[in-house]
Amino acid sequence: MNLFYTEPIQITGNSIKLAGQEAQHAAKVLRLGIGDSIHITDGAGSLYHCRITNASSNELLAEIYESDFIEPEKPELILCIGMIKKRDRLEFAIEKAVELGAGKIAVYKADHSEKTGIRTSRFEQITLRAMKQSLRCHLPEVEAFDSMDKVIKEYQEAEIIVADETVEQKNSLNFGVESPRVLLIVGPEGGFSERERNLIDQKGCKAVSLGKYRLRTETAAITLLNHFQSIHRMSRPR
Amino acid sequence: MNLFYTEPIQITGNSIKLAGQEAQHAAKVLRLGIGDSIHITDGAGSLYHCRITNASSNELLAEIYESDFIEPEKPELILCIGMIKKRDRLEFAIEKAVELGAGKIAVYKADHSEKTGIRTSRFEQITLRAMKQSLRCHLPEVEAFDSMDKVIKEYQEAEIIVADETVEQKNSLNFGVESPRVLLIVGPEGGFSERERNLIDQKGCKAVSLGKYRLRTETAAITLLNHFQSIHRMSRPR
Repeated sequence: MNLFYTEPIQITGNSIKLAGQEAQHAAKVLRLGIGDSIHITDGAGSLYHCRITNASSNELLAEIYESDFIEPEKPELILCIGMIKKRDRLEFAIEKAVELGAGKIAVYKADHSEKTGIRTSRFEQITLRAMKQSLRCHLPEVEAFDSMDKVIKEYQEAEIIVADETVEQKNSLNFGVESPRVLLIVGPEGGFSERERNLIDQKGCKAVSLGKYRLRTETAAITLLNHFQSIHRMSRPR
Repeated sequence: MNLFYTEPIQITGNSIKLAGQEAQHAAKVLRLGIGDSIHITDGAGSLYHCRITNASSNELLAEIYESDFIEPEKPELILCIGMIKKRDRLEFAIEKAVELGAGKIAVYKADHSEKTGIRTSRFEQITLRAMKQSLRCHLPEVEAFDSMDKVIKEYQEAEIIVADETVEQKNSLNFGVESPRVLLIVGPEGGFSERERNLIDQKGCKAVSLGKYRLRTETAAITLLNHFQSIHRMSRPR
């Protein structure tokens, strides 16, 4: 199955217009044409089952014959990750976070971060491709923050879990989570500063171990998401 | 902590010689000199605590004052992954597999693989860096195989777990594992062929779900390793 994306503004009544790369991919790469069925999401939870009514290499029109609303997963997972100096590693972390079910991604400038600024717009293509690839219908937003403090303030109602390489291994993620929103914090390259550690302590965050080996920032992010999903979503039969 | 690597042949009695990139990294980047302490592994389980006795930009001599043998983790995990067309994605999978505790990595040409050959030598730098980065003392080997059949034959005594997107989600990794060796098989891009599926069935492999969303091959590999570690190594207090 291939999933396509459209901005909500391109939906008029029962008709959806795909433009640009999405139309080109459908027409030129997959050679879809009039009468073929196609699945389109608006990235806001809607999944449209459509049939193509008009196709050129730049634009494609499709008629909706069925639509579903896919509820976002609960709890919503917000991945809060320190900036990574190497661009490809940060991009990889973001792509994998989307595939593994993060609802939002907050990239923060840590006290120990060497890199100071990022433009979140360049992640849009990555999150979009990862959403379609994993057949999800919710497009996570990537936000940049000046400090970890600001992320915690923005999501102050969330339960906070911190991957901390200094806690004992027995502190696993194996505990119940009640909140509808969980902030998963991963330290930056170079580790947390004392100031950040104090903040984490003050906020009553739960510190968990990801094992006894040292993990790169992007690996820690993926592992924290995987452990959370493994324990809280996979273990229960549904 | 920084961990350095030496080939076993460079160890003579109580003395270790670091050459090439390892020596350069120690002397030029970390500016280590005579009298500084340094940790060196042979990638075969030994961890040497040393003091530098002689240092130039191309060669470094160190004297061992303590040594430990780090037992390999049990069960040994052999990641068996279908070839990935894009080089950076395969390299990423291999790097992460080392960080996450794979003892060996078998890359196989699947029936649906588009790419046909790989040179495993180019992964040596990746596995070496990932071992040192994660402070492990066992250097995993990357082996290439012509088919999944040959991997299964090579590791015929191992318990086999297959990540299979067609099985129900309730088939999680949440079961006991008795064997000292576990082969974790991840399908290739494009999925298993019918022939490969039959082989998996015949061999009595345990098929597990990694969740309801579609994962790229490298994401599935990382997730399978993480789920295994989360359930079999992290949950038990030690």
